[in-house]
Amino acid sequence: PSVDKGVDFANYFCTYAFLFHQKEMLSDRVRMDAYYNSIFQNQIHFRNKTVLDVGTGSGILAIWCAQAGAQKVYAVEATKMTEHARELVKSNGVEDIVEVIEGSMEEVTLPEKVDIIISEWMGYFLLRESMFDSVICARDRWLKPNGAMYPSHARMWIAPIRSGLGDQKMDEYESSMNDWFGFLEETEAHYGVNMNVLTKSFREEQKKYYLQTSLWNSLHPHQVIGTPAIIKEIDCLNATVSEILSVKAQFSSTITTDKTRVSGFAGWFDVHFRGSRDNPATQEVELTTAPSTDNPTHWGQQVFLFHPQLRVNEGDALGASFSMNRSKENHRLMEVEFACELRHPSGKCLPAVTSKFYIE
Amino acid sequence: PSVDKGVDFANYFCTYAFLFHQKEMLSDRVRMDAYYNSIFQNQIHFRNKTVLDVGTGSGILAIWCAQAGAQKVYAVEATKMTEHARELVKSNGVEDIVEVIEGSMEEVTLPEKVDIIISEWMGYFLLRESMFDSVICARDRWLKPNGAMYPSHARMWIAPIRSGLGDQKMDEYESSMNDWFGFLEETEAHYGVNMNVLTKSFREEQKKYYLQTSLWNSLHPHQVIGTPAIIKEIDCLNATVSEILSVKAQFSSTITTDKTRVSGFAGWFDVHFRGSRDNPATQEVELTTAPSTDNPTHWGQQVFLFHPQLRVNEGDALGASFSMNRSKENHRLMEVEFACELRHPSGKCLPAVTSKFYIE
Ligand SMILES: Nc1ncnc2c1ncn2[C@@H]1O[C@H](CSCC[C@H](N)C(=O)O)[C@@H](O)[C@H]1O
Ligand SMILES: Nc1ncnc2c1ncn2[C@@H]1O[C@H](CSCC[C@H](N)C(=O)O)[C@@H](O)[C@H]1O
Repeated sequence: PSVDKGVDFANYFCTYAFLFHQKEMLSDRVRMDAYYNSIFQNQIHFRNKTVLDVGTGSGILAIWCAQAGAQKVYAVEATKMTEHARELVKSNGVEDIVEVIEGSMEEVTLPEKVDIIISEWMGYFLLRESMFDSVICARDRWLKPNGAMYPSHARMWIAPIRSGLGDQKMDEYESSMNDWFGFLEETEAHYGVNMNVLTKSFREEQKKYYLQTSLWNSLHPHQVIGTPAIIKEIDCLNATVSEILSVKAQFSSTITTDKTRVSGFAGWFDVHFRGSRDNPATQEVELTTAPSTDNPTHWGQQVFLFHPQLRVNEGDALGASFSMNRSKENHRLMEVEFACELRHPSGKCLPAVTSKFYIE
Repeated sequence: PSVDKGVDFANYFCTYAFLFHQKEMLSDRVRMDAYYNSIFQNQIHFRNKTVLDVGTGSGILAIWCAQAGAQKVYAVEATKMTEHARELVKSNGVEDIVEVIEGSMEEVTLPEKVDIIISEWMGYFLLRESMFDSVICARDRWLKPNGAMYPSHARMWIAPIRSGLGDQKMDEYESSMNDWFGFLEETEAHYGVNMNVLTKSFREEQKKYYLQTSLWNSLHPHQVIGTPAIIKEIDCLNATVSEILSVKAQFSSTITTDKTRVSGFAGWFDVHFRGSRDNPATQEVELTTAPSTDNPTHWGQQVFLFHPQLRVNEGDALGASFSMNRSKENHRLMEVEFACELRHPSGKCLPAVTSKFYIE
């Protein structure tokens, strides 16, 4: 499906044009440390190399690559943030090495192929924003045959969780519906128009908003009540767009907490910096966005809440199938479906429940 | 300047496609009473007439016109809200009279000219959203020579106010800048990149966000500390787009509260339903969005804060020039400039201060 560039800018790129937003990413210590270490602990692999930074934003990764000894860094960015990136590059004395190019990755032309592609392309739950498409496009056009991807690998994780958000969102939904019924009465009484026929549609709209939209949350590890499962592994050097258009997986999780309720699932990701076959990382770096008290990230986790919640005990097994597809209206947003069944250790099985969610 | 339709939908129309948002407007009693009374207190002018409702949304105004005896009502709406409007029209038994047409007003074709155009086109501070353009377009194409506009007149008001928001926004701005300086130090210390060169741009961005963006507020009448002034009058029957593209006015206000501070200006609007020359309203109806404890509206007031605030006494005179233009990036948003000077009754005059604002 063809993407209207203006619409994509209005919906997506616009936020990245603010320094405030770039600063949020630059203030994420876990994110920053991972990229910093991946570069400086593997400095020999950057020395005298040509690098492409896909979506350079403020220019931070490009500057680091230059500082690590790269010969040339092409720093491509779609928004006006390029102006600030250029200022930063200059004031940090790497203007002879870093070339900031304004344009969308899909459309710019580089004078040469590169040894390394570096990019921070990960959205909520890894694939939201669909920016990895642009990295794949860059790789296929501009990476030398034995080039390296930074990061080199990515994984998506799912685990059952407990959370007060389940009750909270249900309360909000119910109070919104109560409000609606009051509204119906008033509109009929004062203004002679009966709006009852809209109740079904209003309910669907509010359900989607309160109950079926995944939520950003920074979970405490204790809220994870079952074994996490990997639902997708991506080799950044070989992945194709068709492989990430849709993510489907069967997974199971064993409940590790006794006498609790499954409020739903949380999804997160990690990426690894392993260098390439020819130039494997001296020091492998991991960036994980798993629930953590010490090292939370701005990505947090995406929470998918079930209604009603399920009572579980330690040792119960959750079997689920997961499927994620891009939203038809906006290719950078996702729609997720879970079908989930609970098996007691006795073998007793609860009927499967399915839930649909929107990652907005 | 040509408007990209997809972008306009992403930025503007999308919100109106939600019942939740339509409900907010339908729950505004002041707004509802004004339109309801303008129709039912002038019912004879609607009887057997043909009506066009520009931007029918849920269809409420069209249904009222039908109930008031209109022969035919064309109800045009750009969003999928048409589906709900059709349901409502049908369940209220006026499907033989109201014809719901999905499309943008600029593009639809009606089978005939109409006697009356009704529309609820007013945005924050009247002109935000620029929807009156579409009403003008509809009028020039579809209103019969002696037809009537509902509403028939509109006015914009400005008055000096006091508000705690002045200090609050300044605090937020300052704490954001403090945060920035901490960020600069950390980024240099931990990551070897000096970002000082971005301070000026970051400051501008934050100033724009915290200090130069007008705010929605529902003011208490006591917060109005000087005489309000009318800065624009619109005759809906004769106004042209070029007359509303830009609003310029000189106005003055006498301070009516002693020993206080002017935090800035508030802007609001009113509209009147006077019918037409041939069919003047039996009962003239006013819809005002002025500060009010009993009759607040969802439009509230737009607040423009000055930094620093000005100390004033009863009897001081504020002289100001006002100018509002559409934003280049988005024709539905506005940029406002004030130049303002304070004259004491003694004749002493403070130098003029100018401030620029964005209505987002
Ligand atoms: N197709 C594309 N072409 C160019 N830039 C893109 C792009 N898709 C996303 N971007 C940009 O990529 C950036 C991702 S955010 C990461 C910014 C920076 N590399 C950092 O690590 O801090 C955003 O600034 C966004 O505008
Ligand atoms: N050019 C245009 N063509 C068609 N509909 C338009 C339009 N500009 C705005 N609208 C629609 O006009 C509506 C304005 S809100 C008012 C809705 C309704 N008349 C009521 O009074 O409750 C929105 O639903 C918006 O989608």
